Amino acid sequence: MTQARPHTLPSTDAPHHPLAAELTRRLGPHKVLVSAGERRMYSYDAIAMGVVPLCVVLPESTADVVLAVKAARAAGIPIVGRGAASGLSGGAAPTREALVISFTRMTRLSIDPLRREATAQAGVITLAVSEAARPHGLVYPPDPASFRTSTIGGNLAENAGGPMCFKYGVTGDYVRGLEFVDADGELHHLTRDAYDLAGLLIGSEGTLGLITEARLRLSTPARFTRTLMSSFASVGDAAEAVSAAIAAGAVPAKLEFMDRACVNAIEDYLHVGLPREAGAVLLVDTDGDDLQTVQAELELVERACEASGGEVRRAATDAEAAALWQARRSVSPALGRIRPQRMNEDIVVPRSVLSAVVQEIEALGQASGLKVVQFGHIGDGNLHPNILFDPKTENEEAVHTLAHQIAGVAIRHGGVLSGEHGIGSMKLEFMAEAVDPVTLEGLWNVKRALDPALCLNPGKVLPAARGVAHD
Amino acid sequence: MTQARPHTLPSTDAPHHPLAAELTRRLGPHKVLVSAGERRMYSYDAIAMGVVPLCVVLPESTADVVLAVKAARAAGIPIVGRGAASGLSGGAAPTREALVISFTRMTRLSIDPLRREATAQAGVITLAVSEAARPHGLVYPPDPASFRTSTIGGNLAENAGGPMCFKYGVTGDYVRGLEFVDADGELHHLTRDAYDLAGLLIGSEGTLGLITEARLRLSTPARFTRTLMSSFASVGDAAEAVSAAIAAGAVPAKLEFMDRACVNAIEDYLHVGLPREAGAVLLVDTDGDDLQTVQAELELVERACEASGGEVRRAATDAEAAALWQARRSVSPALGRIRPQRMNEDIVVPRSVLSAVVQEIEALGQASGLKVVQFGHIGDGNLHPNILFDPKTENEEAVHTLAHQIAGVAIRHGGVLSGEHGIGSMKLEFMAEAVDPVTLEGLWNVKRALDPALCLNPGKVLPAARGVAHD
Repeated sequence: MTQARPHTLPSTDAPHHPLAAELTRRLGPHKVLVSAGERRMYSYDAIAMGVVPLCVVLPESTADVVLAVKAARAAGIPIVGRGAASGLSGGAAPTREALVISFTRMTRLSIDPLRREATAQAGVITLAVSEAARPHGLVYPPDPASFRTSTIGGNLAENAGGPMCFKYGVTGDYVRGLEFVDADGELHHLTRDAYDLAGLLIGSEGTLGLITEARLRLSTPARFTRTLMSSFASVGDAAEAVSAAIAAGAVPAKLEFMDRACVNAIEDYLHVGLPREAGAVLLVDTDGDDLQTVQAELELVERACEASGGEVRRAATDAEAAALWQARRSVSPALGRIRPQRMNEDIVVPRSVLSAVVQEIEALGQASGLKVVQFGHIGDGNLHPNILFDPKTENEEAVHTLAHQIAGVAIRHGGVLSGEHGIGSMKLEFMAEAVDPVTLEGLWNVKRALDPALCLNPGKVLPAARGVAHD
Repeated sequence: MTQARPHTLPSTDAPHHPLAAELTRRLGPHKVLVSAGERRMYSYDAIAMGVVPLCVVLPESTADVVLAVKAARAAGIPIVGRGAASGLSGGAAPTREALVISFTRMTRLSIDPLRREATAQAGVITLAVSEAARPHGLVYPPDPASFRTSTIGGNLAENAGGPMCFKYGVTGDYVRGLEFVDADGELHHLTRDAYDLAGLLIGSEGTLGLITEARLRLSTPARFTRTLMSSFASVGDAAEAVSAAIAAGAVPAKLEFMDRACVNAIEDYLHVGLPREAGAVLLVDTDGDDLQTVQAELELVERACEASGGEVRRAATDAEAAALWQARRSVSPALGRIRPQRMNEDIVVPRSVLSAVVQEIEALGQASGLKVVQFGHIGDGNLHPNILFDPKTENEEAVHTLAHQIAGVAIRHGGVLSGEHGIGSMKLEFMAEAVDPVTLEGLWNVKRALDPALCLNPGKVLPAARGVAHD
């Protein structure tokens, strides 16, 4: 309450906002953050800076969420839900002064082994679900790179994917039921039948309702996993190997791609012996319950890689395989050492055009003079071209232009703009190009039906439609 | 045009309805059915009688659908989409005078083996997708019992399941993209990202839009399948065996349950040697790419059956397995020989309460004096209690009361009312009890957002909500 008021943060006088005072009174001061310093921590996610919230609520129960939403609505203040904020599209970063509801204290988790089901509140860490399931011989397959920090609520809001999702499906595929609080503060319990309102909530980035709890399907883990790495002269060669392996019948559990810049960034960071000279690297897992089949599938991939000129190295031990996957998961921190900021795209293109898309993006990066790295879940065509930049020395306008060109490549090749990170605030403009106006109007109709006052996470997912002002 | 006008069909003068005349003029007479005899064929589905439509359009392209929807809207006439009408909840049977759009001529189908994808118009027969995929070594897993006659459009409208769906998922899990015509006759193309509007359309029974085409994910077939049948003294024993097998780690590809009445109905019809004296029978497939694993999984099931007193018979040959599955698929025609009509419920309950639910329903059937048979995809708790009756000699009120009681059993045990057949018109009243008023209002908001004039398949899926008149 005694914070100074730096002129760059005009909202820091918000402790005196009547909503903050009301929530503090009704929920108790331990559940409400009002100081400027604390609130500022809730203004950004892993990639985007947003507006400092008016106040932050840390609910400990669904009832707290209901209370906070009703109070914010009565005060006419927008509401932004937030998990671990490890998102990569600005989904959790407010675009205007808002109440942030941070779910990190709602961590109740239970496992029902007979139903093969986990019931998890929104703030449960993704990894915790798998750890709780393991003693029962069960797993929760969705594995976003941030699974050690991300929350189930955040995963649901962005319908997060990960390396396993090519074979095993994304977050939404594991949802049997949801509890959510709507824009009026009313509580709903949904299953996946009748109108699949649960499916609509999943991936809607908190713009249609706030998911407070989910029932998640668990499955049994594969008994055997085998890993290989293959290096290629060019990204085109790697993309061709992927298409050939899949056409030959392989369905790897993971199938990850990194270009030269990405490999070198990781190698600088971790020193694990990745091939710095390669134009592109593939990391592949095959898995299943029969070792012979798992190995035969790995051989299919190996032959496809070699046919495209790839140099293949099989992981000889579990430890070697673990080190390779640790390297892949370190992409984000490794890139952060090269430039302080990055624009991370999340395109999905048909596998048949992968090679052309990867090469076109590479050429655009070279032409722009900006540093572009590419990696992604290449099995389902989900690529993450990243533009690395330093806003102090590089032109953000040029970054934006290049990002726009990359999105254009995806759309031109029949792709889409969000594989697993969501649209958030960062891809609104591209979304306007990817979705035809008639369908966009349909999406706005859905938004207005569930959030007539447009108070839930404004400025996300949907670009402005005819006659609609968004942020 | 020269049909007589029987007084029981007051709508038969509809050839003279201005909409019928307009559609005939604009689409040509070969695409529009106006005679009473022809229209009457489009008034019912496999289980429910509806109202004879004003006229029937047989579109040959999406453009025809757009034209028909716009004309019906201009005329203020409701619109009911229809596939093969093999549905079991009245979804395709009009509840009032309407334009029926029958998709049976929209049968364009193509396979893209590299993308592992089928593109199918709404009128493509489900089986045709698998047949077209087979030469490429691919399959389309969703297998509703009616797959030889049902259409992809109908499967999408009801989000149809089938025996394979326990392991492999339902229709909606295989949809990558949709083309649909909205209530204003506007055409949309959807993928599964951003707001999952496609997921909302799937299972909405034509109440939110008319699906004209879908891109369907194909997969590779399991290399090996093994089949067993087990007979039990009671339905409770069978249900316990299922829970035990799954708890022990088995994930059978199919796991079907039939009670004694059902087994005897099939045996009367097909004479395939099913155990008439058994209280209940399970039919089980395990599948996979490794024969040893597939057999080990079958043994898990076998041991669980025997522990519950089951008598197990393994199918010794592929022909024997095929005969057993043919028997299961013959349930519907077999029951039709016992009583002319039936009320077919489609409940889903947690597996942990299967045994109690099956026994409670059995007891309710006995108490009612009506003939009840039970069968279903017991692996995911999807049961089909059927009340067989003859409206000439049995009291339909009693049938309705019993159906209501059965729905009550499902809800009381934490279940839901629609596993795979949809809500249609037949389960509207039960839906009102299963969904809390707040969530129902949310579903109505979605309905009104996409179909503000409530012109698409009125009287289906959603029971009346506060202040809303439905049919």
